[in-house]
Amino acid sequence: MTKKQKYSVIGKRVPKIEGLDKVTGHAIFVDDMKLPRMVYAKILRSPHPHALIKNIDTSKAEAHPGVLAVMTGKELPIKYGILPSSQDENALAIDKVRYVGDEVAAVAAIDEETAEEALELIEVDYEVLPPVLSIEDALREDLPMLHENPRRVNNLAKKINLDFGEVDKGMEEADYVLEEDYLFEANTHVPLETHGAIGDWAPDGRVTVWSSTQTPHYLHREMAKVFEIPRSHVRIIKPHIGSGFGGKSEPFALEFCVAWLSKKCGRPVKLIYTREEVFYAYRGRHAMKMWLKVGVKKDGSITAIDYKSWLDGGGYGSYGIVTTYYSGQFLTLPYKVPNFRFEAQRLYTNKPAAGPKRGHGSVQPRFAIEAHLDKIAEHLGLDPVEVRIKNSVEANTMTVNSLRITSCGFVEACEQAAEKLDWKDKFGKLPYGKGVGFAGSTYISGAGKPIYWNDMPHSGVVTKIDRGGGVAVFCGASDIGQGSDSMLAYVTAEILGVRPIDVRVCQTDTDLTPVDMGSYSSRVTFMAGNAAIDAAEKLKKLLLDVASEHLKVPEEDLELADNEIFSIKDASICMDFIDCVVLAETKHGTLSAPGSYTPPKLGGDYKGAGAGPSPAYSFTTAAAEVDVDVETGEIKVHNLVTAHDCGKALNPIICEGQVDGSAYMGFGEAVLEVQRITKKGLFWTPSLLEYKIPTIYDTPELNSILVESDDPEGPFGAKESGEGPLAPSIPAIVNAVYDAIGVRINEVPITPERVLRAIEEKKKADALALKNGHTNGTHTNGKTEKKVETKV
Amino acid sequence: MTKKQKYSVIGKRVPKIEGLDKVTGHAIFVDDMKLPRMVYAKILRSPHPHALIKNIDTSKAEAHPGVLAVMTGKELPIKYGILPSSQDENALAIDKVRYVGDEVAAVAAIDEETAEEALELIEVDYEVLPPVLSIEDALREDLPMLHENPRRVNNLAKKINLDFGEVDKGMEEADYVLEEDYLFEANTHVPLETHGAIGDWAPDGRVTVWSSTQTPHYLHREMAKVFEIPRSHVRIIKPHIGSGFGGKSEPFALEFCVAWLSKKCGRPVKLIYTREEVFYAYRGRHAMKMWLKVGVKKDGSITAIDYKSWLDGGGYGSYGIVTTYYSGQFLTLPYKVPNFRFEAQRLYTNKPAAGPKRGHGSVQPRFAIEAHLDKIAEHLGLDPVEVRIKNSVEANTMTVNSLRITSCGFVEACEQAAEKLDWKDKFGKLPYGKGVGFAGSTYISGAGKPIYWNDMPHSGVVTKIDRGGGVAVFCGASDIGQGSDSMLAYVTAEILGVRPIDVRVCQTDTDLTPVDMGSYSSRVTFMAGNAAIDAAEKLKKLLLDVASEHLKVPEEDLELADNEIFSIKDASICMDFIDCVVLAETKHGTLSAPGSYTPPKLGGDYKGAGAGPSPAYSFTTAAAEVDVDVETGEIKVHNLVTAHDCGKALNPIICEGQVDGSAYMGFGEAVLEVQRITKKGLFWTPSLLEYKIPTIYDTPELNSILVESDDPEGPFGAKESGEGPLAPSIPAIVNAVYDAIGVRINEVPITPERVLRAIEEKKKADALALKNGHTNGTHTNGKTEKKVETKV
Repeated sequence: MTKKQKYSVIGKRVPKIEGLDKVTGHAIFVDDMKLPRMVYAKILRSPHPHALIKNIDTSKAEAHPGVLAVMTGKELPIKYGILPSSQDENALAIDKVRYVGDEVAAVAAIDEETAEEALELIEVDYEVLPPVLSIEDALREDLPMLHENPRRVNNLAKKINLDFGEVDKGMEEADYVLEEDYLFEANTHVPLETHGAIGDWAPDGRVTVWSSTQTPHYLHREMAKVFEIPRSHVRIIKPHIGSGFGGKSEPFALEFCVAWLSKKCGRPVKLIYTREEVFYAYRGRHAMKMWLKVGVKKDGSITAIDYKSWLDGGGYGSYGIVTTYYSGQFLTLPYKVPNFRFEAQRLYTNKPAAGPKRGHGSVQPRFAIEAHLDKIAEHLGLDPVEVRIKNSVEANTMTVNSLRITSCGFVEACEQAAEKLDWKDKFGKLPYGKGVGFAGSTYISGAGKPIYWNDMPHSGVVTKIDRGGGVAVFCGASDIGQGSDSMLAYVTAEILGVRPIDVRVCQTDTDLTPVDMGSYSSRVTFMAGNAAIDAAEKLKKLLLDVASEHLKVPEEDLELADNEIFSIKDASICMDFIDCVVLAETKHGTLSAPGSYTPPKLGGDYKGAGAGPSPAYSFTTAAAEVDVDVETGEIKVHNLVTAHDCGKALNPIICEGQVDGSAYMGFGEAVLEVQRITKKGLFWTPSLLEYKIPTIYDTPELNSILVESDDPEGPFGAKESGEGPLAPSIPAIVNAVYDAIGVRINEVPITPERVLRAIEEKKKADALALKNGHTNGTHTNGKTEKKVETKV
Repeated sequence: MTKKQKYSVIGKRVPKIEGLDKVTGHAIFVDDMKLPRMVYAKILRSPHPHALIKNIDTSKAEAHPGVLAVMTGKELPIKYGILPSSQDENALAIDKVRYVGDEVAAVAAIDEETAEEALELIEVDYEVLPPVLSIEDALREDLPMLHENPRRVNNLAKKINLDFGEVDKGMEEADYVLEEDYLFEANTHVPLETHGAIGDWAPDGRVTVWSSTQTPHYLHREMAKVFEIPRSHVRIIKPHIGSGFGGKSEPFALEFCVAWLSKKCGRPVKLIYTREEVFYAYRGRHAMKMWLKVGVKKDGSITAIDYKSWLDGGGYGSYGIVTTYYSGQFLTLPYKVPNFRFEAQRLYTNKPAAGPKRGHGSVQPRFAIEAHLDKIAEHLGLDPVEVRIKNSVEANTMTVNSLRITSCGFVEACEQAAEKLDWKDKFGKLPYGKGVGFAGSTYISGAGKPIYWNDMPHSGVVTKIDRGGGVAVFCGASDIGQGSDSMLAYVTAEILGVRPIDVRVCQTDTDLTPVDMGSYSSRVTFMAGNAAIDAAEKLKKLLLDVASEHLKVPEEDLELADNEIFSIKDASICMDFIDCVVLAETKHGTLSAPGSYTPPKLGGDYKGAGAGPSPAYSFTTAAAEVDVDVETGEIKVHNLVTAHDCGKALNPIICEGQVDGSAYMGFGEAVLEVQRITKKGLFWTPSLLEYKIPTIYDTPELNSILVESDDPEGPFGAKESGEGPLAPSIPAIVNAVYDAIGVRINEVPITPERVLRAIEEKKKADALALKNGHTNGTHTNGKTEKKVETKV
């Protein structure tokens, strides 16, 4: 990529390309679409968390006036799943249901009301089984297995053991070792748009599905398999999406149902999940129990980490194996850790399957490790920010588990967040009830290893220049609102010297756009961005060729910007972009070029080494300032500063928006959001009224800082911004609560009940300690006594 | 292009790629589309053929409940037109209306009924002018001019004089010269789908128009000009089209109105013309008066042609200049004519503008010349088929007006059509009232010169291969039902060795598809086909590269067919297409390539030389067998044989369908269809009830024969099939009527009235001749006396 003297698009605070469409209601989402002759579907769901299906009688539903088709699981017996090793789902359950809400039958009718009436007429004979409703249940050997497996004695789905360096020796060498248990409860994504799909099975046997999916190409693959038709006969189109946060990144029952019902009734079929259905379709953040042991030297430098996690996986595999790896693989970062061991187990339970949510698998352990480091810093009498800076990983190094660090702006992120919050003036110095907390974090810029298609491009782009001056970018990357389409427009516009509004990004359509793995793992800007650069540079070469001839200026002295090609030595020697395009097309023919990006070979050679490596890692710090009401237990976060090393910010507004959104979401997870289930397998809070995402009244002042580290592998130096900034906000708030009221809470969310209970328990412990004539620890700001674990 | 030993797709009788969609109602046309918040528009039209607009008061319409926007011509003052030299239209008339139906104002409302109510409330003050309603009127100098032009004294729009060789000397050298007048009345296309468009002006200032247009890229260009926005901000999308036949091949008022009304009201706007509106929007076949003089030697060989035409152009330019050239430029073909002169004049009249209809400009003179040749053959006592064969042009020659003939199957077409109709056994030998007639013709495979963008590709294609095996072809060619998208799929499938159903042709979308000039002049299969071959060959090279490595077979020994790549020496050495694609994408990155086609430099160096040259010419013959009811004047065509030299038939079913359709349409024009206007400027027959297109009961047995001549310039040797086969059916029927009843009719359509009048006139003439003791001619079959012009 040729370097410009200055950028005309990159780094500028310009609108998202679809911004006006979205805010004016002009953008079309699945539910806005109406195809001729379209009918509507509904899904019948299991009322039992665990049961065998003995029989399904659909005859009355089929006979119901207005019903066009009814389907059951037996019609689509081939299993699917997002991972090759977790092919355990059917569009509709066949012999067994595994959670309340598991899909059992589907109906297409002339309208939604008729479809719902028909669902009532479907008779299902269930044989109810004892449910497995917790991690503890799943570890029992006397409960039925959700998925029969002769190699298992309980509901263990996946167990990982990884060992890097010499952990026991590292612990021996430590001056201080702290060991604790942590719990992170389940929560969910709450995309504003519920999942929706339209299926249209054409009379020639080709099927088109419009879906609110984050991974059109994986859906494409699974659909061809389940329907037993060539992949070239399946077309997935992604309209505008009202966000996903990971909750739309795998195949869902509705996508198969609309397609199959369309085949059965010969008309397009639409199905839009209700909000309640989305709560059950779920695939949200895994509830996770964790055990963590960290050894440090007196100066705070980490000598070893030993770690275990137990993941509550729900009824199906989903991305669970990846989540299980991700629950440990990034734990050492952003720190230098010479010895590291982790064991992780994912368990099946009779709940909706858990899957990836923003920060996938790394958010829960991030809470644990950052809370842990806070305790260690206190024990050592060190400033928590200084401890983090001291341990910071460096650019151009390799972690003990073979993650390659290219750029790293973590120290700068520590300094800037601390400064923004006036850390030095506040930490340990605020009155009782008020406190500040700090945490660091990391995230990947896309996974180095794809789910399928090893060694093939992760992102493909085709770019075309029209002789009228328009530029079209085709890419299968699935913009779900994060602005990835805008990023493709920006990099293309920058290279070709046009404005973003002259670039049309073709929304993902598996027929039209080249494969991109999809919107997950914060990969799109990085990977599709690199592919778009590749394509645009090829076209730029053709333009420079004719411009050089025409202007009689050597190619290396020409630059493209603002719809002109000009000499950098004398800008008056210039030509219009369209004139140049006309010359180039006349000489070279239709102007179009493909581009692609395949990450370099990354990672170690151990089993599981593929889960974790990324071509680049982002780094983030969060600093929170809180008020804790010790009467009500309520936590009020005043200020949440997030400093994020995003490489180069291709568009600071969008990067800041992603950082703000992540911090907002982390705040919600820290203090409000939780998905709990009743003994009958029902969610307590399956509605927006009951499930507490923060409103504008709850939300803290968000202060986002972009730290630009210029990654050598990233497009124009960019790294991810969409997920990494979420994780540190949670431990920052947890640590701030300790600074405020001197209680450590090892469970997330830190609800008022938990705060009050912790205060109560601490009072009892302090009273007991006083009675016994000694204290278990000291507190630097002297507000109250606090308990700190000492080396055994 | 590498030659295969045998084709697996090309030349096969496979379905059209969209065939099932069309016959099952699955295909989506503009009127099937429903966008969110869409509203509906209607246009107010002039009740006067010629009037000044003094004032328009839209206030009552604007105040009408449910009306969202009203527009008048002053809002869009920039003129447009299909040709750079005929920019004489406004979306809505500004100061003057020029025909009954001329567009005056437009309304967008919540539904069509409300929009129509609002039209009634618009008050227009007209100052009525004397109308110009015929060619004769237009030549008068005392009637007002439709378009002010100080260089003119009457309503002449365009006059052409071309002179090739030495016509006067040619006439001198002739043994026989025949000179007559002919009239071809106006008729229209009658596409089953009426014109429709949806406009959607986005809040970012970019506008999308879905339109049933044959020329999306020209519309794209004109729209940007009229709206004064960059071309990159205009997007034209062509859904399925229910045919056009030339009647949708230029910008129409509705396209501008829906876009502008959408801008005004902020919602998508749909406008579908009623059938009556289409009759007025028109742009149908020009009424043409012709004078023709042909000199021949005794053996029938033509020594010279002298020709004049007068075209009734209606109120605007449209393609008129091209039509005017086309009324003469192809007249010598398919014959060798050493000397040729023509003069053509197009006149403005207060009627809807005439434009291109299938066979554009060449159908009317074809009737004249072929009827003329029939008379000449009779005079010389020669068989009409033999006269045509004797005069046939040859491959690899140049006509006197510099048209380059590459391949030519005209002689074979003569022989095969004659044989199919048992010509030798029937001509001149059938009983009175029954007869056979013969005619020849030619047509272009696309124009050698584009309307805009000289020297640039006429067709661009981008082809992409998905790693799932699907192939996407992007081309701006506008399939209007003729099957051009199928042709692109076939040539691509053939080269890449996949099935047509694995190829998805992206419907024209000026944002997504490269420029193709559009569906006119029978250019698409030829030009876009060549571009598609160019793109596919580039991709094939990448596939062969990896297949050769993998199979260890030299590239030249590999062939692609049936989704496999195999050695032509040992077909057991093979690999699956998808496996090959995966290897190729792994090695070469995203698999996509552009292709383009620019015709070679063609034509002479005289003024107007650009109108006529084509990279290849098709040749056709028609042989008709008729019954004439001398009591009613009704003509019944029993058999209409059409032998068409289409080069290579890429898919014989589709080529035959085009030939059948052309012959059907020619039959309708010959005996049924006519557009006549009242003294007040109204059409007599503006409905499908009154305007007589042939029904299945009227239609002759159609026998289509494909003559394959393998054109060196055409894709896989193909030439056009869509237009050329229309023209000869008309003179073949006219000539058959003469053979049946011995009367020559020089006016088309040959309605019952004309037949009866001709019989009556002949009776009178014969009676007069008998009285005067001589006859004016002889008739070979002795049925009755017939009049033949002799050399003066």
